[in-house]
Amino acid sequence: MWFTCDKDILQEAINNVQKAASTRTTYPILEGILIKAYNNRVIFTATDLDLGIETYIDADVHENGSIVVNSKLFGEFIRKLPNASVTVKMENNSVYITCQKSEFAMLGNNPDEFPQLPAINENSMYEISQDILRNMIRQTIFAIAQDETRPILTGVLFEVRDGKLSFVALDGYRLALKTCDIDSRNNISAVIPGKTLNEISKILQPTQDMVKITFTPNHILFNLGNTKIISRLLDGEFINYRQIIPDEYRLRAKVNVNELMSSIERASLLAREGRTNLIKFDIKNDGMVITSNSQMGTVYEEVSIELEGEGLRIAFNSKYFQDVLRIIDAEEVYLEFSTSVSPCIVKKCDSNDYIYLVLPVRLVENS
Amino acid sequence: MWFTCDKDILQEAINNVQKAASTRTTYPILEGILIKAYNNRVIFTATDLDLGIETYIDADVHENGSIVVNSKLFGEFIRKLPNASVTVKMENNSVYITCQKSEFAMLGNNPDEFPQLPAINENSMYEISQDILRNMIRQTIFAIAQDETRPILTGVLFEVRDGKLSFVALDGYRLALKTCDIDSRNNISAVIPGKTLNEISKILQPTQDMVKITFTPNHILFNLGNTKIISRLLDGEFINYRQIIPDEYRLRAKVNVNELMSSIERASLLAREGRTNLIKFDIKNDGMVITSNSQMGTVYEEVSIELEGEGLRIAFNSKYFQDVLRIIDAEEVYLEFSTSVSPCIVKKCDSNDYIYLVLPVRLVENS
Repeated sequence: MWFTCDKDILQEAINNVQKAASTRTTYPILEGILIKAYNNRVIFTATDLDLGIETYIDADVHENGSIVVNSKLFGEFIRKLPNASVTVKMENNSVYITCQKSEFAMLGNNPDEFPQLPAINENSMYEISQDILRNMIRQTIFAIAQDETRPILTGVLFEVRDGKLSFVALDGYRLALKTCDIDSRNNISAVIPGKTLNEISKILQPTQDMVKITFTPNHILFNLGNTKIISRLLDGEFINYRQIIPDEYRLRAKVNVNELMSSIERASLLAREGRTNLIKFDIKNDGMVITSNSQMGTVYEEVSIELEGEGLRIAFNSKYFQDVLRIIDAEEVYLEFSTSVSPCIVKKCDSNDYIYLVLPVRLVENS
Repeated sequence: MWFTCDKDILQEAINNVQKAASTRTTYPILEGILIKAYNNRVIFTATDLDLGIETYIDADVHENGSIVVNSKLFGEFIRKLPNASVTVKMENNSVYITCQKSEFAMLGNNPDEFPQLPAINENSMYEISQDILRNMIRQTIFAIAQDETRPILTGVLFEVRDGKLSFVALDGYRLALKTCDIDSRNNISAVIPGKTLNEISKILQPTQDMVKITFTPNHILFNLGNTKIISRLLDGEFINYRQIIPDEYRLRAKVNVNELMSSIERASLLAREGRTNLIKFDIKNDGMVITSNSQMGTVYEEVSIELEGEGLRIAFNSKYFQDVLRIIDAEEVYLEFSTSVSPCIVKKCDSNDYIYLVLPVRLVENS
């Protein structure tokens, strides 16, 4: 194997596939990147067996061949090179990287030992722009379960039904649902691991370029053109989320997102101090009062609202509100409530494409 | 106590004094800030008993008085307030902070329990601009000892002799010496704790505004105008650093700082891997070769130099070179050597105001 290409192009390819390489594993070949050069094209592959990423670049290939190199070391060396032409050459079991007056010789591994990515027959049943996919991930992934007690909840539901694509994440305390139109009549319901979506969202760019998506019974493949990302799906049935979301409310408050966010941030200084994250809302006709307290002190915040319905006193874990206010793309939102022990819905005022549900904290005393 | 001022001004004052407040202490009052309001001036003080910072702002003082508040909580709340007018009011043992529609009530502590900063009769024997002082700190502090086995080496020597101010730091492996002119005939030699200089350098601005410095036998006081910083000095005699610095060399290489830095960074990828940080220089008439190796591979780097004298092979801990190349304010430097077991001097080509000395690593085998 022997090829020459620009440092920038090489670095971008490494950055992309590196996201799938294992960092700590008992199977060292998974810490590697498989490099395969032929016909003026170089293909890079990395996988941790759950997630696999493959990308290719055009290069001057002087000699076909393939080898596996340590991902971290190879990547860091390339990153620190000057912006110039880089030559990568295999000799015996070693790889020689040369660039201007730098040369790095590193041991390679046998490419035959590198696990193959699942062979997937692409049918590209779904197409969605990078920009929209990125946003769908960002607005839901934070609500997945962080612990593994119910593994299915560590993923995001990908559901297509009647020309609508929905991403759903929930952890038992809150739920995030993001919907968009999709040009497909093929219904599907599959759960993608959070880790996969997290890595993909780092590769996706805010562009209109399309991502093609193919499903098999156990895998999903995202095709970005030069880069393919293959992930296993999570086993099991996702929770029937539709029956969790109430369709009615008893009162509704319209509130400015920044104002609410700032008030909750200040209130949560003390909430954090007391380790309960508890903040209380007192919703009244002339405004919403947010309070929190600990032995260190008390925070009292007034937030302007437009209220429909009667007032209510209700308490929440402040973190669950901060999470959604940070990512919602709206200036104003509706908060919809029914009773002090039923969920609150956060949604945009002018669209139903995003719904966030959060359970209240039941207060023992009426304080 | 009761005063009103702008949030920005209050926040800057808190940021400055907070650097001296203790974060973990068995003496909770040291986690506080003493706030003292009188005659339209509010003074803030914090100390961990080694370092004390005091700053004042102008404010509308409606009622004189003083109290101690928890530094972290008070600071975070102020920081999260909108840019508007803030009122701080003491009632009984509590402090009420109000700003627009936010109110924070926190418990205060008795100001009589707050330790007084050492009373120092200012003589302002030395004056130096903030900019220069900041630079003197930055170019030396990284070379102080990180462990406490010889406490005096955890500080920086402040030495005035014959109209020259020198800052000296050394840790047994390298030495950094920065010199500037100072308009004073009063010679002095005192050792300032590294922690003090680290905090001061965060307060100093890149301006020509003067800092006035006063010494007592046990303390140093920096007067920045609104802000005063008082620190204890380290006990004991500093090492006689002059006798460590060789005045002669057998060979001298002129080298570009960025080129050398990049080469050493790449070489140290493997040096780090092998945990020895070892890089080898092979200095020859037609250039300098830097190599490093581990079981993972070998890096070979050529760096252009202008050499005076014969060649040399010598080895170093790469970290000690990276540290100095990162902060030296020159495009090109001289590296001066004598033998493979004597120190290397790094200095600017056009000035003697900065000298860095680094000991080589003795190689067992001649490889």
